[in-house]
Parts: sequence; structure tokens; C-alpha cells
Amino acid sequence: MAQAPFIPPTVGVFDSGFGGLTVLRALIALAPQAQYAFIGDTARLPYGSKSRRTIARYAAQSARFLVEEQGAEYLVIACNTASALALDAIQEAVPSSVPVIGVIEPGAEAARQASATRDVLVIATDATVQSHAYAAACQARGLRALEKACPLLVPLVEEGWVASPVTNDSMALQTSAATKQQAVTADVVRIYVEELRADAHAMSMEPDSLVLGCTHYPLLKPVIEGLIPPTIKIIDSAAAAANELVMHLSRDRHALAAPASSGTRLCFFATDSVEKFERLGSRFLGRQVNNVQLVDLGG
Amino acid sequence: MAQAPFIPPTVGVFDSGFGGLTVLRALIALAPQAQYAFIGDTARLPYGSKSRRTIARYAAQSARFLVEEQGAEYLVIACNTASALALDAIQEAVPSSVPVIGVIEPGAEAARQASATRDVLVIATDATVQSHAYAAACQARGLRALEKACPLLVPLVEEGWVASPVTNDSMALQTSAATKQQAVTADVVRIYVEELRADAHAMSMEPDSLVLGCTHYPLLKPVIEGLIPPTIKIIDSAAAAANELVMHLSRDRHALAAPASSGTRLCFFATDSVEKFERLGSRFLGRQVNNVQLVDLGG
Repeated sequence: MAQAPFIPPTVGVFDSGFGGLTVLRALIALAPQAQYAFIGDTARLPYGSKSRRTIARYAAQSARFLVEEQGAEYLVIACNTASALALDAIQEAVPSSVPVIGVIEPGAEAARQASATRDVLVIATDATVQSHAYAAACQARGLRALEKACPLLVPLVEEGWVASPVTNDSMALQTSAATKQQAVTADVVRIYVEELRADAHAMSMEPDSLVLGCTHYPLLKPVIEGLIPPTIKIIDSAAAAANELVMHLSRDRHALAAPASSGTRLCFFATDSVEKFERLGSRFLGRQVNNVQLVDLGG
Repeated sequence: MAQAPFIPPTVGVFDSGFGGLTVLRALIALAPQAQYAFIGDTARLPYGSKSRRTIARYAAQSARFLVEEQGAEYLVIACNTASALALDAIQEAVPSSVPVIGVIEPGAEAARQASATRDVLVIATDATVQSHAYAAACQARGLRALEKACPLLVPLVEEGWVASPVTNDSMALQTSAATKQQAVTADVVRIYVEELRADAHAMSMEPDSLVLGCTHYPLLKPVIEGLIPPTIKIIDSAAAAANELVMHLSRDRHALAAPASSGTRLCFFATDSVEKFERLGSRFLGRQVNNVQLVDLGG
């Protein structure tokens, strides 16, 4: 009997904005054989200031859209706030056959595997830190986690004050301006990291891992690497979530059936300003974001 | 016949958050004889990313609360986004006898009075710049305005990375950290101001005024002053709105009846986290913010 033709699995990826495109980037790198439908609920961001109930309702709507209308067989919640507050609600909103992967548990698991001292640092947004979701996930694995809110990092990344291989080859004038902007970003990261390490020292912690607990932060990874000692390893929750997806795909034999060199199929949806999504999104995805479709999830 | 006892006028002040407390501060300085009811619609901020219709509905709810439940006889819309997009809707939501004062028209009017070259610079949030409300208000007065969005300034102010007379006398360690933070803020302001002045130069403009088009920016005034030539005058929309209120009060004879030294009565209302409002609000108001009451405006 002839082998059935390879049908690529469909992975739905959800974020409140476009930061989750760094997670999609990691997913594509590790599982290029899948096809991806990404939705950014940009009309209703930021989720961080909203109640758990509202976030759960919004996230469930996006999850159902991905599963029911885009045929997603796997869901990746590429949003720390939704992962922290709404993972159960999302799992309940879709058939139990659809695995729902957040970013927090994989991030904590990667920290467990990386840490020898069992002391871990976490940087994230104010909302994620206030949820203490990383601290809880780390504690459940026998790790002690110190979390720090870094509210300036998301706006700095969204302003584009970061080194980007995509836009680096601009005019000399722009490069001079970009250098000043990137110096500011490095100063901000330095201040946050120094405060965090001083707090850890005061608590007699010996951290050997730093978790990037926000989907915007992978764009700052080169800056952060330059500002911490090599004894501290950076844990990227996006990459950790991608690893988790690959485990699921392998279990379901999808990974084994990858065709040699077909391009990854990508669909993008947003609930507000498609233009802004395309412009900012490309920076997060590391490749052009085109043909974003506007969708109305209601309410 | 004996003169009637002085009954202080009630002024309602509205913002989507607590930035508008800089406007309240200016109001108290110029019209201490009034009593003030301030509401921050913190549960639904930021307004900047919402549609005109939604902003109008939210702002109208706050305006009615101030007039119907707090007895406000004057309304000051201490929010650039609401001033730009919802001033008509607010005026329609309250009796026509209640004057509604926004921050944009007074800011543009102050620029007209200050500018000799008729070229004006405006810094504001992304949402305010996209509305081009300042450019329109300036153009109506024969001024040419160049607007620049400065998205990092609000988060920097909210992080407290600004010099503050209230918190300056902390421990030496904190002061050292604060110095680094304030240096970052100065760098960010410098980058924005240099870009704006370069753009103005490229357009052959000769600006002699810079309008602070966001209620957070008065906290950055000392920094900005140090980074622009003395030929450019800073126009504070908050102070301009306060001047406008005093004009109304004088017209209605309230200003004339000010008692010698009674303290200004202040009431604060917020639609979310009273604790955060008190903590951050004090920095904007320049004095302690206490007894903030939580209110539910519905919707």
C-alpha cells in the first residue's frame, strides 16, 4: 500500500498584538513543515491591564477562530499575559484533541533544564510579573525565581530602537540616529539588569539563568547578552514553546513526514490596523509580513 | 443688603488616566478658590488606541458623572485624546450651561500668543499626532505646526525616571540609580527634540515655540528646557487650559470672591486600581493624592 501524501499540520498561533511573531519565528525555525495561522487581537490590546475574566473571553474567541475557521490542530498561545491568566479557558474553548501550548510552562521548563544553581531571574511586563506565573511555574520545578517588571522595554522595541538586521543597511544619517537610539536601549537594559542582579545578590541568590518572559524581548537578546556575565544563560520562552510544539508534532508523526524544501505557509489575521501590523510585524518575524487580513471577533 | 456668602464653584476634571493631574495642578495654582472633582477612567485606558465613537462614549460617561453626581459647573477635559476626538460629544452630554474646556484649543491659543515666527513645534503621543488636532487648531490661528509623536516619554514618566522634588531626598543608593535613570530620559528627549528640529529645518521652518501636547510632559519640562535653545519657548497646554478656566471663572465672578486662605477641596475618583492611582498620581499632582474612590461607570 502506497504511503499517504504528507498533509502539513496546521498550527494556530495567538497573541494580543504582534510580539508573538517572535514565537512564530521560533516555530518556523524548528517546525518549517507545518502551516501557520497567526492572529493578533490588536484592537483590544494591551491585555495586561484587563481582568482575568475579560482576557479569558477575548483569548477564547481568538482560539475558536483559529480552530473552527482556520482548521488549527495545535494552538500556541504566544502571549505571556494570556498564558498566565487564560490557558485553562482557552483549552476549554476548543476540542480537547487540540493541544494548547503556552509560553510560561515551557519557559520555566527550559530554565529547569539549564539551571544548576536552581536560582533563576525573570524579566517581563508589569502584568506578567504581577501574575507571578513564572515564579509559580519555577517553584513547581524546585527553582527559586526572582521576577522584575521592565515596562520600558516593550515601548523601546516597538519604537524600533533596537539593532535590526532588516533595517541596518539604511543611509548614514539614519545609522547615526539609530546608534544613539540603540545606546539608549542598552542603557535602559543595563539599569534594569543591574537592579535585578543587585536584588538577587541581596537575597543571597546565585542565578545562572535569565528568562525572557515577554514576547518582545527576543529582539533585545543581543543587547542583554552583552550586559550579563557569561555564567548567566538566557532562556527564550519563545524558543522553549517551539520545542514543546515539536515534541507534540513528533509524537503525532508530523515532524517525520516533512517534505524536503517546500516553503512554510503563513496566514496572518489582525483585529485592527492591518498596516501597522505589517510594518511592525516584519521586525518581530524577521521577514516580510504581507497580506494581513482584518477580522472582527465581535465584542 | 449683606453680601451672599462665597460658594466655591465646582470644577470637574476628566482624564483617561492620571496624567491629567498635571492639569489639575495647574488649575489649583491659578484658581485655588474652586473645589475640584477629578476622575481618571483608568479601567479603560489607554484611549489612544480606541475609535472616536468609543472614546466619545467613555468620555461622555465620565462627564455626566462629574456634572450629575459631583455637581460640576465647569468641565476641564485634561486628556489630549479626548480633547481631540470627543469635545463635541462631551458638550452634548452635559447641559449647555456647563462650559467644557479641552487642552488643545488653549494650547494652540497660547502658541499663537507666544509665537512671532508663526512656526510652532508640537510633541505628543502617537494618537494625538495622528489626529492632527494641534496642527488644525494652529492652522486656524495662522500658525504652521510640525507635530512629532514621542511614544517613549509617557512610559518614562510613568516609570518615574524623571527628577521629582517629591522623591529626590531618598537614600544615596537610590539617588545614584535615579541619576542613571534621569540620564536615560534626557537622552531620549534629546533624540526626539533633535529629530524634530532637523525636520523643521528641512522644511525651512523657524520655530520659536514648542507645545507640550500630552498631560505627562509637564514633568519633563525641566529636561526639555535644558535641551532646546532659549529662543524656543515651551507652551504648556495644562497651564493654558488653566488660564482658560480662570477666564470663565472671572466672567462668572467666581474669581473675584476668593476667600483669603482656605484650602482647595479635592475629590478623586478612578475606575480601576485606587492604589496605583494614589502612588503614581502624587507624582503628577505634586502633592499627596489620598482617598481615591473607586467608581463603576459601566460598559
